[in-house]
Amino acid sequence: MSSYEPPVGHILQSSFGHGVLRELSAFESKISPVNLMLPLFVTNSSPDALEPINALPGVSRYGVNNVLPFLSQQVEKGLRSIIIFGVDVKNTKDKVGSSADNDMGPTIEAIKIIKAKYPQLWVAADVCICPFSDTGHCAIFEDGHMDNQKSIDRLAEIASNYALAGADCVAPSDMMDGRIGAIKSKLRELKLGSRVAVMSYSAKFCSGSCPYYGPFREAAGSAPKFGDRRNYQLPPGASNLAMRCNSRDVGEGADILMVKPAGAYLDIIYRTKQEHPNFPVAAYQVSGEYALLFHGAKAGAIDLKRGVLESLTACRRAGAELILSYFTPQVLQWLDDD
Amino acid sequence: MSSYEPPVGHILQSSFGHGVLRELSAFESKISPVNLMLPLFVTNSSPDALEPINALPGVSRYGVNNVLPFLSQQVEKGLRSIIIFGVDVKNTKDKVGSSADNDMGPTIEAIKIIKAKYPQLWVAADVCICPFSDTGHCAIFEDGHMDNQKSIDRLAEIASNYALAGADCVAPSDMMDGRIGAIKSKLRELKLGSRVAVMSYSAKFCSGSCPYYGPFREAAGSAPKFGDRRNYQLPPGASNLAMRCNSRDVGEGADILMVKPAGAYLDIIYRTKQEHPNFPVAAYQVSGEYALLFHGAKAGAIDLKRGVLESLTACRRAGAELILSYFTPQVLQWLDDD
Amino acid sequence: MSSYEPPVGHILQSSFGHGVLRELSAFESKISPVNLMLPLFVTNSSPDALEPINALPGVSRYGVNNVLPFLSQQVEKGLRSIIIFGVDVKNTKDKVGSSADNDMGPTIEAIKIIKAKYPQLWVAADVCICPFSDTGHCAIFEDGHMDNQKSIDRLAEIASNYALAGADCVAPSDMMDGRIGAIKSKLRELKLGSRVAVMSYSAKFCSGSCPYYGPFREAAGSAPKFGDRRNYQLPPGASNLAMRCNSRDVGEGADILMVKPAGAYLDIIYRTKQEHPNFPVAAYQVSGEYALLFHGAKAGAIDLKRGVLESLTACRRAGAELILSYFTPQVLQWLDDD
Amino acid sequence: MSSYEPPVGHILQSSFGHGVLRELSAFESKISPVNLMLPLFVTNSSPDALEPINALPGVSRYGVNNVLPFLSQQVEKGLRSIIIFGVDVKNTKDKVGSSADNDMGPTIEAIKIIKAKYPQLWVAADVCICPFSDTGHCAIFEDGHMDNQKSIDRLAEIASNYALAGADCVAPSDMMDGRIGAIKSKLRELKLGSRVAVMSYSAKFCSGSCPYYGPFREAAGSAPKFGDRRNYQLPPGASNLAMRCNSRDVGEGADILMVKPAGAYLDIIYRTKQEHPNFPVAAYQVSGEYALLFHGAKAGAIDLKRGVLESLTACRRAGAELILSYFTPQVLQWLDDD
Amino acid sequence: MSSYEPPVGHILQSSFGHGVLRELSAFESKISPVNLMLPLFVTNSSPDALEPINALPGVSRYGVNNVLPFLSQQVEKGLRSIIIFGVDVKNTKDKVGSSADNDMGPTIEAIKIIKAKYPQLWVAADVCICPFSDTGHCAIFEDGHMDNQKSIDRLAEIASNYALAGADCVAPSDMMDGRIGAIKSKLRELKLGSRVAVMSYSAKFCSGSCPYYGPFREAAGSAPKFGDRRNYQLPPGASNLAMRCNSRDVGEGADILMVKPAGAYLDIIYRTKQEHPNFPVAAYQVSGEYALLFHGAKAGAIDLKRGVLESLTACRRAGAELILSYFTPQVLQWLDDD
Amino acid sequence: MSSYEPPVGHILQSSFGHGVLRELSAFESKISPVNLMLPLFVTNSSPDALEPINALPGVSRYGVNNVLPFLSQQVEKGLRSIIIFGVDVKNTKDKVGSSADNDMGPTIEAIKIIKAKYPQLWVAADVCICPFSDTGHCAIFEDGHMDNQKSIDRLAEIASNYALAGADCVAPSDMMDGRIGAIKSKLRELKLGSRVAVMSYSAKFCSGSCPYYGPFREAAGSAPKFGDRRNYQLPPGASNLAMRCNSRDVGEGADILMVKPAGAYLDIIYRTKQEHPNFPVAAYQVSGEYALLFHGAKAGAIDLKRGVLESLTACRRAGAELILSYFTPQVLQWLDDD
Ligand SMILES: [Zn+2]
Ligand SMILES: [Zn+2]
Ligand SMILES: [Zn+2]
Ligand SMILES: [Zn+2]
Ligand SMILES: [Zn+2]
Ligand SMILES: [Zn+2]
Repeated sequence: MSSYEPPVGHILQSSFGHGVLRELSAFESKISPVNLMLPLFVTNSSPDALEPINALPGVSRYGVNNVLPFLSQQVEKGLRSIIIFGVDVKNTKDKVGSSADNDMGPTIEAIKIIKAKYPQLWVAADVCICPFSDTGHCAIFEDGHMDNQKSIDRLAEIASNYALAGADCVAPSDMMDGRIGAIKSKLRELKLGSRVAVMSYSAKFCSGSCPYYGPFREAAGSAPKFGDRRNYQLPPGASNLAMRCNSRDVGEGADILMVKPAGAYLDIIYRTKQEHPNFPVAAYQVSGEYALLFHGAKAGAIDLKRGVLESLTACRRAGAELILSYFTPQVLQWLDDD
Repeated sequence: MSSYEPPVGHILQSSFGHGVLRELSAFESKISPVNLMLPLFVTNSSPDALEPINALPGVSRYGVNNVLPFLSQQVEKGLRSIIIFGVDVKNTKDKVGSSADNDMGPTIEAIKIIKAKYPQLWVAADVCICPFSDTGHCAIFEDGHMDNQKSIDRLAEIASNYALAGADCVAPSDMMDGRIGAIKSKLRELKLGSRVAVMSYSAKFCSGSCPYYGPFREAAGSAPKFGDRRNYQLPPGASNLAMRCNSRDVGEGADILMVKPAGAYLDIIYRTKQEHPNFPVAAYQVSGEYALLFHGAKAGAIDLKRGVLESLTACRRAGAELILSYFTPQVLQWLDDD
Repeated sequence: MSSYEPPVGHILQSSFGHGVLRELSAFESKISPVNLMLPLFVTNSSPDALEPINALPGVSRYGVNNVLPFLSQQVEKGLRSIIIFGVDVKNTKDKVGSSADNDMGPTIEAIKIIKAKYPQLWVAADVCICPFSDTGHCAIFEDGHMDNQKSIDRLAEIASNYALAGADCVAPSDMMDGRIGAIKSKLRELKLGSRVAVMSYSAKFCSGSCPYYGPFREAAGSAPKFGDRRNYQLPPGASNLAMRCNSRDVGEGADILMVKPAGAYLDIIYRTKQEHPNFPVAAYQVSGEYALLFHGAKAGAIDLKRGVLESLTACRRAGAELILSYFTPQVLQWLDDD
Repeated sequence: MSSYEPPVGHILQSSFGHGVLRELSAFESKISPVNLMLPLFVTNSSPDALEPINALPGVSRYGVNNVLPFLSQQVEKGLRSIIIFGVDVKNTKDKVGSSADNDMGPTIEAIKIIKAKYPQLWVAADVCICPFSDTGHCAIFEDGHMDNQKSIDRLAEIASNYALAGADCVAPSDMMDGRIGAIKSKLRELKLGSRVAVMSYSAKFCSGSCPYYGPFREAAGSAPKFGDRRNYQLPPGASNLAMRCNSRDVGEGADILMVKPAGAYLDIIYRTKQEHPNFPVAAYQVSGEYALLFHGAKAGAIDLKRGVLESLTACRRAGAELILSYFTPQVLQWLDDD
Repeated sequence: MSSYEPPVGHILQSSFGHGVLRELSAFESKISPVNLMLPLFVTNSSPDALEPINALPGVSRYGVNNVLPFLSQQVEKGLRSIIIFGVDVKNTKDKVGSSADNDMGPTIEAIKIIKAKYPQLWVAADVCICPFSDTGHCAIFEDGHMDNQKSIDRLAEIASNYALAGADCVAPSDMMDGRIGAIKSKLRELKLGSRVAVMSYSAKFCSGSCPYYGPFREAAGSAPKFGDRRNYQLPPGASNLAMRCNSRDVGEGADILMVKPAGAYLDIIYRTKQEHPNFPVAAYQVSGEYALLFHGAKAGAIDLKRGVLESLTACRRAGAELILSYFTPQVLQWLDDD
Repeated sequence: MSSYEPPVGHILQSSFGHGVLRELSAFESKISPVNLMLPLFVTNSSPDALEPINALPGVSRYGVNNVLPFLSQQVEKGLRSIIIFGVDVKNTKDKVGSSADNDMGPTIEAIKIIKAKYPQLWVAADVCICPFSDTGHCAIFEDGHMDNQKSIDRLAEIASNYALAGADCVAPSDMMDGRIGAIKSKLRELKLGSRVAVMSYSAKFCSGSCPYYGPFREAAGSAPKFGDRRNYQLPPGASNLAMRCNSRDVGEGADILMVKPAGAYLDIIYRTKQEHPNFPVAAYQVSGEYALLFHGAKAGAIDLKRGVLESLTACRRAGAELILSYFTPQVLQWLDDD
């Protein structure tokens, strides 16, 4: 038997042997601080609150007095952007989620103090009704049915109040029809249309009871009181529906598209970038993903650092410029160490 | 303020309201038995062996007498394809992995009895040197260096012996240069070129010490004695290198391309399918992925069934026609129950 | 001279040798009952009418009493969807096609009895003015000119009346500007926007006198009294115009895009699917195509079954999920026989 | 109800209103003489033969004395290219098709006299064994089995003899593995590699008993004596296999790719052009397609001119630069008349 | 050492050896008169004006009496389209650019006499405020700020007046938000929506002080009095922004997309064509490009004819169907000479 | 008249308002030192030579003693890679270009001293016969004809001698058939296959007398003595041929693809990157481009810095990771200044 000699064209190492070639080849998967967005839970339980979240070991809710000290460490390590989740435990939840944009509520207060101290930091605010409504749903209900028009009017109102408070970006996490257009219209009316970006949770999969979102509820206190959110979130296999949601939101003016969760939807991140190459894409590594990696490492199944970096590298490789991850402080530290 | 009315073109539910429309829209993500490939560990420790694998709770190594009873349950539930990993604990490991294709070794023995009983079952055999060599590496070493030519000659020999024993497919899991061409040449020489398919582990990421592959070693008994396999597996961010490996293997005659691991590389599965639409793509959900889901469910973080099905749906949605998963028996049961 | 040995990479049969591989490779061209949509001509000439159509040998117009008996045979063989063409021979044709949506007219009557008996059947209704107008054109004329706005208002009215009668889908076959948006707006106004799908004849080629559409006129009784329809149908070479029509209709809310005719426009079907991967695509095998295959087979030039199946396989392969074909009953029978 | 006003962006006529815009938009579907390739049957039954082919009404086989008079009319109307099919009725058919490249056989004789008279005409010759072998198959059989290596060696010999006689292009119509490479190797050996093009019947669908190829057999006298050609022609749904054939032939040096038949494979023409944009694509409108259009027109179902031009426009629109059609003389006349 | 023999598949010359093959291969880069659009400066300084433009050696501004004599030479050589730039030196410039569409102003006068003499010529008119406003900016300023709404209303007014005067196409060269939609709405209101095309300067790079646009100012007399135009023109690296401008303008009804300048943005021309294959693309070879080629040739660095033809061939190859070039008269002459 | 209000989705500034968004959007067009490759002319006229090149004002040929001092300045400013052009004025030119790889010739000497001093610098060497042959052609001539096989054998020899001297990359600038494969084979034979990269001048347009290449000849002293190079360089319109050259060279093992010249071929750079996304692409801004920009700036037509940076930004935007430019020292300075 004569040996098979691979064709010369099949030598691959020559393309990656020298440092210059490797540097020219792998830009797109590199993680830099600018790619990391910190989810920040701000509570009004007490100004000095510092409440560990059981379901997200290592992550806390911050009272207003603790926000800046925590952020200052991150900014020093290169943090460029955050997204605020306000947790209101003082005001009564009602039908329309009135406390969402209470002038003295945690979200608006946090936006103001953060932008005052760090005007260059890019500050986004999550926009939804569910953490503040008595139903725990992302919509306003009338007679037992979601009222889409009222819901998007209200979402536009909340978003514009965050924008008026100084947010650079508003990020509607509900899935109501037309909420991007409603928010953009309202922003334009207020002459904020050109300054404030809208990051749409445009491809948001799965319902509240799905594997991934459980722990978030404890963090943000937003479990629905009845039914679940399957009606307005996407089933895991529905790639064509997700793509149509992306297109719809682009058509209504979204500036950034988000895929959530990240890990089990890397192909959707890639397709989103393919279909919308001229838009930044964000990936949200949700609380369930955090939990799996954390517990897996604890059980010795994986090495935490390698596992986390691999998961974030995957998001970058798939095309996400922005990654929302609870591991952000840890990763900034690792990048700083290198 | 006047309300924003979403454009009529942004109504999405009408496209998915009726069952016929949903059926026409979501073919590509559905999991059928034909999409599931069972990894089967066959040991020669004893003909009656039934050895649970600690790192893969619920998965066992089978002695030759237990193979058919186990398979018969799966075939009844619709199993169409398997991949055999031989575990030789009797013969001495040597430089070239002689026991890999020992005529009476576990792999060849298993192929023969399985094809005799289930001629329609599509039987693949994993082809590598590492489980049978004294170095634990996927290559033959001479003077401390991998000898690529000797390695691929040997791999071709192993593969062709599996093919002669009746395997429908041989699946080289090493990453040596030119092994696909060497195997195809040898198969052609033996007039098996048109009957036996080659499934290439073409985009195989990460080294043996990475988060994902740990538990597999216990199962197949193949940890390297020195160094690790990073030299011949791909770093997580190297999408361009992975794509070039796919193209190279297609150029040498691969019939099926495999991405491994699956979960953190869904975007790579998608790109593989995009660049090679005329080839079936396989995804290997590795032991580490199994472990994360298993332990996560045990810790109550996720619901096992929903989590597993979501992970496999993701592989299908990304473009994999074949999924190698240790959950296969469980999923066949779930599909059977529905 | 030394022989040329083809590269090992050029062996193709190994990729298609085993049944599992063939099954994984050819999903997309398979014809299942869910892919076949039956065009159904319903006449009010008499409740018991059963009128053979000369130009479509083997196809008939059905009076209301004969609809369900005929359908029941098809549903038994797996029929999942139909499209109704009402033929009104009793009411006077007028400028606006008033009889199109006459409450007791054949279309609305058929929708009601069919949905009552087969609630799971997906029932579409062709929407146009031409079979019911005194001009035989697809538009309303004022002062000798087509009035686009009046035409689309009227089309929206007809469509919504079909929807109110129970149709799951309305399918405007005219080519007026803005008729998709007009219909969707009207449906939304009536709270039917999310339940009723709109299938747009978006890429409809050629005029009434072209080779393909002749026989249909006898079937539906809709030849124009003056001029022809070239002004609002596409010339055969105009692929860019067809693609812009598709995009326009998607922008106005079409749920399904149709290419008509099918056979000479397979490349357009393919391009439509490529540009709109997240939408189902329908292909209409028109009466002229039916006639060519029928007469060709009769003359012994081709084998009818092979010719018909090849033509439908081609539509599926090109990307159509839905095929409107007069051969539907015959094909359901063939599929049943296999 | 307020009327729906279509968005201004949905006005399409402005893009096609002026002649300059129409001219800039529709280049790609236009039929020019350079796009038409004439299939020419040359017989050695008698030098003065002029034998009408029943199955192709209006098409004849030409004896050597009648070739130039017939061609001269076509060249005057702009004909730029032909493809010769030699029909040998004098020499005994044998195992290897010896008469195919008989020095005085019809093919070689025709090439010589045509190139002598029309040096600028692009002259291709069909290359196969089937019209000259005693089996009627496209391959050489040994012991009842096709011998692929002998077949491609013989095909290379035939092709190179045609090239030596002056053919500008050789067009292997068999589907043997490696015949393109074998022909190119032989041509290179003879220093003809850079002058003579190879047009591969690379995506040739269906077997001899399929609807489309029947009439050709009468024309070229090449029905198989046993079995049929399904083993080496593609089933109608096998788009992925067709695409792999195209790629394989490009890899072996094909200069032009052909899709055959044309009409039911317009999507394959389009995909071939998409995957191989840098290669000319030919479409063969086969004898069955000719027959359907001819008989359909005769039966009054279609208008011949409109039907034929629509079918050829479709080939151009799908991406074919070259169309092999029996209607070529008729179309040249029509183009000349316009 | 044994020589390496290139694979037979790597012979390229056979694909381009014969004239027919070359003709079938290179359609897309050929320059025909229909691809050339003449920029025409018309001045009202005097009816008999013929003013050489220093910065564009060889190009002049024409008084109304000299327009037709100059054009008649070009039309004879095949010119099919022009774009008019009116230069008003008589009327006072004001805030809103009133003289742009003065009924007796140079633009409208030129449109009328040209369309009267050459009804088949496709006549476009550049639409902007800057040559006629006292600020020299493309927008109307209120209180020192651009007023976008007033600007687009005014642009729509100018455009519609040009259209009413007979222009076949209006070409807004500003970059205000929404000007395409405003113009299309106004045209539709005037029943000109289907007759008059809008060519959008959709991807217009760089500001007035950038290398390329300098000389144009002398020609059209339109330097800004304060600030520059960087706010509303695109920075050279902003491909994603350019692509979003193209999409936006298509969404508002643009019939033709323009990339400006041409030479340093060939990749943008290509991408524009890729993303909008169903729209004609225009490339504007600006005055600075003209100057570089002219002076380079004068200095002996290049051959003018080869350099100019290469630059225009590049535009065609990249996908532009229309090229606006000051070399048009010269190129028509060269084409005529060949 | 009511004003047209642009859709909210058409606000673009919100996507680019904040620095973080701009940074995430424009990575791909940024110029970093790693993207710049310095062409370095090394002469053996005298060890202390420092010869200004008239045709490239500001660029010089360096004697061996002046190489390191010049380079040290560039490396300090961040230079990462160079390409060496040896200019031999001492040895007699002969048929095979013997002096190209003379052990003591300027190229090999330069490689050695540079790699000794700067082991991290990525050092490429241009490989051709023309500067060293008595014909001035890129090939070896036998009996008045190019001998392709001898030429590629010789090119492989030269390349491997440069590689043995320490070059990290060899860059064949001829266009002979098979030279990439020949070089790779030779390198593999010498066990250099995995260490040394091959950068192919794969899409090299135009002949020596074309506008762009003139000045280079003075620099490298390589004008052909008879004929020109049009036979083996590509005509400007031949995009399909260029793409086939790229594919061929990838098939033979090229590690990097080069497009030359850069400026008039930006669309080709883009297409090269599109078709070969997994390979680095280099763009060569040739001497003629340098001259046009230099003289244009001198004549006041453009601003040099803006013009040069725009031209290089264009290369990056089009997809080139590497730019070979004579402006490299100047640009490193500008980057350093910022
Ligand atoms: Zn919510
Ligand atoms: Zn191994
Ligand atoms: Zn109609
Ligand atoms: Zn044959
Ligand atoms: Zn302006
Ligand atoms: Zn050279």
